[in-house]
Amino acid sequence: MVDFTEKLMRYATLAVNVGVNLQVGQTLVITAPVSAVEFVRLVVKKAYQAGAHNVHIEWEDDEITRIKYEHAPDAAFHEFPTFKAIGWESFAANNAAFLTIIAPNPDLLQGVDPQRIINFNSSKGKALAKFRSYGMSNKISWSIITVPTHAWAVQIFPEITEEYLIHTLWELIFKVTRMNENDPVEAWRMHLLMLKERTENLNRKKYRTLHYIGPGTDLRIDLSPKHRWVSDADNINEKGISFLANIPSEEIWTFPLKEGINGTVRSTKPLSYEGYLIQDFSLTFKNGRVVKIEATDGIEILRKLITIDEGAAFLGEIALVPHQSPISETNRVFYNSLFDENASCHLALGNAYPFCLEGGTDMTEEEKMLNGMNSSQVHVDFMIGSAHLDIVGELSDGTKEPVFRSGNWV
Amino acid sequence: MVDFTEKLMRYATLAVNVGVNLQVGQTLVITAPVSAVEFVRLVVKKAYQAGAHNVHIEWEDDEITRIKYEHAPDAAFHEFPTFKAIGWESFAANNAAFLTIIAPNPDLLQGVDPQRIINFNSSKGKALAKFRSYGMSNKISWSIITVPTHAWAVQIFPEITEEYLIHTLWELIFKVTRMNENDPVEAWRMHLLMLKERTENLNRKKYRTLHYIGPGTDLRIDLSPKHRWVSDADNINEKGISFLANIPSEEIWTFPLKEGINGTVRSTKPLSYEGYLIQDFSLTFKNGRVVKIEATDGIEILRKLITIDEGAAFLGEIALVPHQSPISETNRVFYNSLFDENASCHLALGNAYPFCLEGGTDMTEEEKMLNGMNSSQVHVDFMIGSAHLDIVGELSDGTKEPVFRSGNWV
Repeated sequence: MVDFTEKLMRYATLAVNVGVNLQVGQTLVITAPVSAVEFVRLVVKKAYQAGAHNVHIEWEDDEITRIKYEHAPDAAFHEFPTFKAIGWESFAANNAAFLTIIAPNPDLLQGVDPQRIINFNSSKGKALAKFRSYGMSNKISWSIITVPTHAWAVQIFPEITEEYLIHTLWELIFKVTRMNENDPVEAWRMHLLMLKERTENLNRKKYRTLHYIGPGTDLRIDLSPKHRWVSDADNINEKGISFLANIPSEEIWTFPLKEGINGTVRSTKPLSYEGYLIQDFSLTFKNGRVVKIEATDGIEILRKLITIDEGAAFLGEIALVPHQSPISETNRVFYNSLFDENASCHLALGNAYPFCLEGGTDMTEEEKMLNGMNSSQVHVDFMIGSAHLDIVGELSDGTKEPVFRSGNWV
Repeated sequence: MVDFTEKLMRYATLAVNVGVNLQVGQTLVITAPVSAVEFVRLVVKKAYQAGAHNVHIEWEDDEITRIKYEHAPDAAFHEFPTFKAIGWESFAANNAAFLTIIAPNPDLLQGVDPQRIINFNSSKGKALAKFRSYGMSNKISWSIITVPTHAWAVQIFPEITEEYLIHTLWELIFKVTRMNENDPVEAWRMHLLMLKERTENLNRKKYRTLHYIGPGTDLRIDLSPKHRWVSDADNINEKGISFLANIPSEEIWTFPLKEGINGTVRSTKPLSYEGYLIQDFSLTFKNGRVVKIEATDGIEILRKLITIDEGAAFLGEIALVPHQSPISETNRVFYNSLFDENASCHLALGNAYPFCLEGGTDMTEEEKMLNGMNSSQVHVDFMIGSAHLDIVGELSDGTKEPVFRSGNWV
């Protein structure tokens, strides 16, 4: 029996030694919420013990974010500090590793003016475009790991008594991140081998089209002849060091042909976009572009989201996750993409990852475009998987074969 | 009867509306410890209500600082992120206001290698030299305000039961910062008028020398013919806006002639330098330079401190504070300069404030030097006042007259 403190230490170790896989002499840049200070302290200590040259922390506070959205003037949402963008680019150029610790608060910004959220994320996206290109192309090691918040626990466990909420959520996080295994690091190694095998199988198939069929969903997605299925087992940075970008990570993904998407897809889980919940929505695509949106909640911000730039109205990622996964088996909706996306087939609006295209990481923006890759400052995952989803693959000779049936691999 | 929540709101209001005296459209830059997040939230809300354009927060965490000093490699103490220095300079150049919220932990770094503390503060001092010149010359509005910590409360109130510690310290802070007055803002206005009158009286005297006599102290300090006594009532930024740099503020101060200090002075309160306690120490000066140091505790770091640069071994400030002040009357040693310096005559090693010299803010570095001003990246106050301190002033014609007797104004 492993106690809570031990599991927390294991989780910090996973973040440092497997997540960003910190090397001796490397600087670690952490983004973290103030509420997670105790976990951050463990991570910092682990980082120095792993040989970190230095640790730089960028703190955030949800309540202050909300205060800003409620009380700041409009102009405050049209700027992002240039010096921070420069600093982050400089850290990235000097081979720092980047760990993002998130403490979700799925409806933090519910009710604020959606235009402010869009404006700020657009300003931030533009300011950080160069920095983000380091991550999108896996030049640097980066990882995202999650810690509980009270607000989040209440949404996942509406039935659980106040005093047990945070602990219950920690235990759930430990379960789906394999902290209860005898040797979590080995368990992750085995799991990543399994993901690698799946991508290799699919890469041999070279489907030209995937056809998604489910309740409210009838969507055809064309793939490039040069598409590559990848998983977190494929993350190798510029220096040849592997890293685990998402904790947990159950998905395998590739990029769709930007203009090769037609039909309608219905979401199967709520989407928390920057603290704003968008629920029960459908998107209709024509030649790749979103041409129709329906939603019971949050339609306004969804409409604005797809207008941030040209690429925001096109898809950049398609990901396959069996409905039977450690996360799905918890039978919980997490209201958080990092968990929900690893429990459900999903798509992403916006930017495509260059390493999903053969030779993509060495291509210019124009070459990627000519190969059908979407480009955007936006990258927003949304869930479409369920026990009722079928996916049919079409091979280059026109042969059709089932890929997913009732939400799971055939 | 004003309740705790109301006093806390008043304290946040004092910081924003009197401390930095935030103007509509101005950006506020806050430095704050993670442990003070609840107070910071109040301040941020007050700032936006006062018309802030934006609020930027630079967070710190004492425990992580300690972890770094214990576990990071030596090289980590020889650097300070350039991008932060650039960002702060840019904020200052664009007329931002700077609020520092400190949560003291007087012996946080006790026992770590003093050389690391000196190295880091030297690197930080060099990186921030340009930014700090904005504050030293009062071009920008800046203010320092304090909130309790458990570690600090334990040192001030060794006799008080655990559960009452923080509350007792808050009430003490509220008392000495005039939060219990019917109208705190008006109380501060009256107090600053009184400080102004004191500086005007002393400025008419134009003493050429002050002679300090007390237990262990026999020190002569020569003053420039162009010295000016100032107080926080004189703080006016480049735009003509007043601000209150220290909360609380009871002192009036000027600069001594760099090479005009001779004799020995004994400290009357412990000095917490960057989380390291230096206790019961004496400094002997010859022609301005420290030539001998004695201390019961912390002598090593004190010795290193005066070698950070040439000016660190000379004085930059002399300040007069009556022993009878609201802070002294609490009969507590605060182990924190912001409180102790406003309850005790003090001196500062290191840099002099240019506005203490007639025309000083318009002078080049060389002109200030020729006028006998000390220059350093260091500015460290230490307390020398007590109920046994006498100060004799010598006028330009050689006449001597008492200035302080038994620790108070004559």
